[in-house]
Amino acid sequence: MSSDVSTAAAQIGVTGLAVMGRNLARNFARRGYAVAVHNRTPARTRELVDEFGGEGTFVPTETAADCVRALARPRCLVVMVKAGEATDRVVEEFAALLDEGDVIVDGGNAHFEDTRRREQQLRERGIHFVGTGISGGEEGALHGPSIMPGGSAESYRALGPMLESIAAAAPDGSPCVTHVGPDGAGHFVKMVHNGIEYADMQLIGEAYDLLRHAGGLEPAQIAEVFADWNRGRLNSYLIGITAEVLAHRDADTGLPFVDVVLDQAEQKGTGRWTVKLALDLGVPVNGIAEAVFARATSGHADLRRAARDLPGPRPDATAVGGAEFTRDIEQALYAAKIVAYAQGFHQIATGSADYRWHVDQGRVAAIWRAGCIIRADFLDRIRAAFDAHPDLPALLVDDTFAKALGQAQQPWRRVVATAAQRGIPAPGLSAALAYYDSLRADRLPAALVQSQRDYFGAHTYHRTDRDGVFHTRWAEPQRPEERAD
Amino acid sequence: MSSDVSTAAAQIGVTGLAVMGRNLARNFARRGYAVAVHNRTPARTRELVDEFGGEGTFVPTETAADCVRALARPRCLVVMVKAGEATDRVVEEFAALLDEGDVIVDGGNAHFEDTRRREQQLRERGIHFVGTGISGGEEGALHGPSIMPGGSAESYRALGPMLESIAAAAPDGSPCVTHVGPDGAGHFVKMVHNGIEYADMQLIGEAYDLLRHAGGLEPAQIAEVFADWNRGRLNSYLIGITAEVLAHRDADTGLPFVDVVLDQAEQKGTGRWTVKLALDLGVPVNGIAEAVFARATSGHADLRRAARDLPGPRPDATAVGGAEFTRDIEQALYAAKIVAYAQGFHQIATGSADYRWHVDQGRVAAIWRAGCIIRADFLDRIRAAFDAHPDLPALLVDDTFAKALGQAQQPWRRVVATAAQRGIPAPGLSAALAYYDSLRADRLPAALVQSQRDYFGAHTYHRTDRDGVFHTRWAEPQRPEERAD
Repeated sequence: MSSDVSTAAAQIGVTGLAVMGRNLARNFARRGYAVAVHNRTPARTRELVDEFGGEGTFVPTETAADCVRALARPRCLVVMVKAGEATDRVVEEFAALLDEGDVIVDGGNAHFEDTRRREQQLRERGIHFVGTGISGGEEGALHGPSIMPGGSAESYRALGPMLESIAAAAPDGSPCVTHVGPDGAGHFVKMVHNGIEYADMQLIGEAYDLLRHAGGLEPAQIAEVFADWNRGRLNSYLIGITAEVLAHRDADTGLPFVDVVLDQAEQKGTGRWTVKLALDLGVPVNGIAEAVFARATSGHADLRRAARDLPGPRPDATAVGGAEFTRDIEQALYAAKIVAYAQGFHQIATGSADYRWHVDQGRVAAIWRAGCIIRADFLDRIRAAFDAHPDLPALLVDDTFAKALGQAQQPWRRVVATAAQRGIPAPGLSAALAYYDSLRADRLPAALVQSQRDYFGAHTYHRTDRDGVFHTRWAEPQRPEERAD
Repeated sequence: MSSDVSTAAAQIGVTGLAVMGRNLARNFARRGYAVAVHNRTPARTRELVDEFGGEGTFVPTETAADCVRALARPRCLVVMVKAGEATDRVVEEFAALLDEGDVIVDGGNAHFEDTRRREQQLRERGIHFVGTGISGGEEGALHGPSIMPGGSAESYRALGPMLESIAAAAPDGSPCVTHVGPDGAGHFVKMVHNGIEYADMQLIGEAYDLLRHAGGLEPAQIAEVFADWNRGRLNSYLIGITAEVLAHRDADTGLPFVDVVLDQAEQKGTGRWTVKLALDLGVPVNGIAEAVFARATSGHADLRRAARDLPGPRPDATAVGGAEFTRDIEQALYAAKIVAYAQGFHQIATGSADYRWHVDQGRVAAIWRAGCIIRADFLDRIRAAFDAHPDLPALLVDDTFAKALGQAQQPWRRVVATAAQRGIPAPGLSAALAYYDSLRADRLPAALVQSQRDYFGAHTYHRTDRDGVFHTRWAEPQRPEERAD
């Protein structure tokens, strides 16, 4: 490998050649771009070129300076290293070598607040910093991910065509990438994508659990149910792989694969970030939160061991069974899925307003149609809803979804009731239903809660019949007194 | 008012004389302590002395220096100002005037991480900083709050007797104050107290809503139900004030008070803090989270207006009614309350372990028995549970609570099922049930979730039948391969 790069010929650079970075570099190369590749330990760079050099034009580089010299101007460099300090270190190393107008893309899973900080720091030095969400895992990075770049609109002019070339193509052929918005907008939207993914997976898990322990079906049968659903409105990557996982038998034991896997789900943090930020933004995302908590609960082995004998129905009770129950579950799953996505988009709309990003929710739905983990036909319905009404106050009230919810709500209620009565935990399905019924409610018991707050903390209240801020002297509650706001 | 204090006679000082600070100062004075009082605008200090000077010995002071001069050594000063920058400013102003061994108490609602920072900074200067949770509102501050001091054990030697003197007395006569643990432990425990309070209020709200809209009762009748419950195991301050609120009629309209209050519950942030920290600690607190989200949902007037016509049952459906339903609700409320407290104590145990605080959970329960908003006989049952088994892995499995849950679980399931089927939102009751059933479950669908993660992200999995970390090559899933951890 030569570090003597005579011509600045590479259109794009990638530093950090672990599997995501390597596959992204290969994707660029396979699309005809000359890609400067760089890694802290140069052995990885050599491996990449040795193994995949035939796929396109790679320019191996040994040092950061070599890498920068190899890039045509304006230089575009994609950083694919661990989020956090590693990103800061690598970004700083390269920024020192770059010139005004050059572009650094952070393709890792950075927190959008870090991205905002980095973007601002580099903007002051004339360098474009583009925090970019990339979803689709290893396979997506290689064959076409969903790409969510933030940063300046100007940076997108240099970067956009290349990203559009490597992105997944939606069913209508359009590339799954858009300029999401300024500074941290891309990583923010990627974070919410992951939060929705948590909820989606949890709901699928609950559907499986109910089919098995209330429906009396075996994993292989449930695999068929999911395969069947995957031919309908639930068609999606996650439903498809669920069918495959459930159909799979462990080679060593011959048991259903899902039965040999320890039932403790791990998490890397983006779901948690989503919920924490939603709390700060005042956006109720209980569907996502229940999914995050369900993973946490599953991992508390000691707690579960201690609590295992608490009283309640056991799953070996007589099965509800039958095609009708399976259809009910499909309805419940679809309805709760609509709620989870509605909550995620509510968070995007609120974040966008708070940070003045002007995120186009229809475009976000559009670029999630392919490439990413939550890819699904469903996203095209969301795209259509926002395209028809960009100011839709809630996804739930879009005609298509409202109609689906109307058809689903009775089966959904039956499923939640069945889960409660049979002792099968369905936190996601029931939280989504409670959210749905909360939004529908003419009156919420929040009036009582606010009254309690006025009672013990003089926190005041508003009235339904006139404006103003009121407090009742509860020791002698004769008349409410009006308070200055 | 003279600022010429000739003798350093005051045993304690209070700066910040808004209602909480004023009442705390009066409480100290009424218990026989000479209290130096100080406020940024001295008019408030004069008002306090003019109005309440007869209650005890107040030493009014005009400047911070006056205030410090008025204090006997080691000086103990209680800061009662707004959390955040105001606290930093006042603490810094006084710290500059204090000597080694003096004690600053922050009695505001600071975030415990801020308390940790302040404690460390002042410790380096030899000053004890005691972040202290104080619960009970204005009335509590005056007549006896529940007090949760953190900081050094040494500081508690000077401070403890005074705090014990002004604190509420538990039914057994012991004062509701204890040295919770080092640095931020006091504010941490106060934060979780508030999180539990959110959950408790939400559950009460749901019980009321169900009694009204499924049970067909009017507020005055529900007031009687709550008054009745308040004579049983649910006896507590919150149940008591709920009965009062529901019995109250608006003087202007003659309507039930709860019907003239706008059904939008506000929040000041400690509930949100609790949930955010629980997410970081990996503690599932869905009962608390649902309460925080329910308040947020109630405030989204636009969203609710848009969603009001979504399909579902209306609350004017035929009432379930009857004494049996009311008894079911009581059971559900009690069971869900146990879960909410179990989650809060789980968070305290986890925080205590993470920050090495050695918090005694039985002592925490003991000091919540009186003075604070969640005061209740119930807390004595929790104290007993932890006193009997300090390492209780979960409150739920204590004999007393396990038995109560066993009796409650069928009615609880009926209530959650009824809420789902009748379209009445019960996010708290149903989340608590899902948590309960999750902990009981022999197998959770987390196994499927982890399988999905392995499929799309090569996140690996553990097996039920042997140790190790495994990954299945899903493209050609022949044998699981063992992965280095």
